[in-house]
Amino acid sequence: MKIAVNLMGGDNSPGEIIKGCSKFINEIPSDELILYGTESVTEIPEFNILSSYDRVEFIKRDSAVRMDENPLVIKNEKSESCVTGIMRAVADGKADCAFSCGNSGATILSAITNIGMKPEISNVSLMSFIPVYRKDAPTGIIDVGALGNRPFEADTYFELAKLASDFYSSFFGNQSPSISILNIGTESWKGSKEHRKLFTLLKESDLNFYGNIEGDELLKGSSDIIICGGFTGNVILKLLESFYDICSEQKNKIDCDKENNFLNFIIEEFSYESIGGAPLLGIDGKVVLGHGKSTGEAVSSGLNFCREYVQKS
Amino acid sequence: MKIAVNLMGGDNSPGEIIKGCSKFINEIPSDELILYGTESVTEIPEFNILSSYDRVEFIKRDSAVRMDENPLVIKNEKSESCVTGIMRAVADGKADCAFSCGNSGATILSAITNIGMKPEISNVSLMSFIPVYRKDAPTGIIDVGALGNRPFEADTYFELAKLASDFYSSFFGNQSPSISILNIGTESWKGSKEHRKLFTLLKESDLNFYGNIEGDELLKGSSDIIICGGFTGNVILKLLESFYDICSEQKNKIDCDKENNFLNFIIEEFSYESIGGAPLLGIDGKVVLGHGKSTGEAVSSGLNFCREYVQKS
Repeated sequence: MKIAVNLMGGDNSPGEIIKGCSKFINEIPSDELILYGTESVTEIPEFNILSSYDRVEFIKRDSAVRMDENPLVIKNEKSESCVTGIMRAVADGKADCAFSCGNSGATILSAITNIGMKPEISNVSLMSFIPVYRKDAPTGIIDVGALGNRPFEADTYFELAKLASDFYSSFFGNQSPSISILNIGTESWKGSKEHRKLFTLLKESDLNFYGNIEGDELLKGSSDIIICGGFTGNVILKLLESFYDICSEQKNKIDCDKENNFLNFIIEEFSYESIGGAPLLGIDGKVVLGHGKSTGEAVSSGLNFCREYVQKS
Repeated sequence: MKIAVNLMGGDNSPGEIIKGCSKFINEIPSDELILYGTESVTEIPEFNILSSYDRVEFIKRDSAVRMDENPLVIKNEKSESCVTGIMRAVADGKADCAFSCGNSGATILSAITNIGMKPEISNVSLMSFIPVYRKDAPTGIIDVGALGNRPFEADTYFELAKLASDFYSSFFGNQSPSISILNIGTESWKGSKEHRKLFTLLKESDLNFYGNIEGDELLKGSSDIIICGGFTGNVILKLLESFYDICSEQKNKIDCDKENNFLNFIIEEFSYESIGGAPLLGIDGKVVLGHGKSTGEAVSSGLNFCREYVQKS
């Protein structure tokens, strides 16, 4: 299989992206990478080692979207940038999956523009995963950013719930994953009018609807998929990441056995390096976003995520 | 000073509310409590000991609002319930502050109906506090529930930011507390149209505006007050509480010295028992909400919060 990678996306690009690709190509004996980068990468020694592999192809592009740039640049002056390259590779059947660590807005917009949405789908959504203590599979959350600027609307999220259920089912082998709505109370009448409408839509659907959950249930594994607005989802994900940062910072200060330690669970499981990828649901092709802060380790996990995604569906 | 307490509010009422009041009255030598409860409390031995104090007055009411009841009952069949009693006590100048652990909706509605809002204020907001590692004063968050069903609107939250700044300033002795907006990115153009409008309003105001922060900054103490929509705020607060629950559950399993342990910091600081109260800003009188799950310990902290609130403003 072939994965198209944007070398120029992410706060630590291209260095950490190159590191992650090198780790992946060394560990996985068969898969191929198509790397999109600007001229500048050819001056990096590690890139030159990476690009010398038979299973690695490099395609030079003239521009790259910066992390702080308005995503709309991909519509105009940066329409031929690296992120466009990875999307076209998927659209043309040259790659099985596209991977980019940002700029998220530009990546999402580029996927919509170049690959397009699935038939009868009107929105895309980023699904991310949070660690759940004592549960085999992580909990998926939609949306965590793609719809962050938009108000929460029942019809949109009902459509996305079906996409999320299909993804979770094929990726984690769970025939009928349970779905809940994140709300400010468990009762069916809680939240806004749109929350109540979504409650009814899910309850009357064929999906395995669990009901409303509150914030304190997020980490308790009560359901496989949690639906929440893009704004709240984005905040939750970043808050959980900060736990990882804070705990990691404390690790060396603690005078205790590091084995079987709950703090260790937080450090290992809450690390965004461990999953490394969030699928962009609703696109008529496979697109995975990595975290903007991705290290080489996270990029390598993200590419492994792409690999499983292609294999399992 | 006198605090009016709703004995019938909270998941563990009246038992834990009575416990908390007993602890408070034993520890604080001068303040008085006015307790509102139904006939049923008079059968509880602990209540009878409590009500025998000179500094405790008991006022019997015929009804109490259940935690799962629609808040609107206080407008009709339960207009003379215990929660109405504590609000009237404040409105009539009989008590300096009202305290109730729920039902939140009924408590807020009752405060608006019986005490009313401050002049030129069109909304009320619940301000809660989150622990911040290595920072003396906690971070205040508005809103965390009062506006949970409402969309995020710039004018509303700008008005609330001023109330929050005044409260923080007098309560924590910080002349010019810094204020940030919780958003999905730090750039001024991030979030919805209303987020951008609020950014401009705060930037052009006399308030000490820090800018936008993301979810991973919530616990890092970058600013004193964080403004976020009631829905997201409610979710964040409950998520943080779940950390307390999960960590507490793990405490006994960990084979390490419990002193100077970061896990201990989480357990102690993330406990809703440690602050115990959220002021209802915008009301023309002092009203404090306790957590629905409050234990006696949390109720006692909540009453101490009421005491400081009255003393400091």
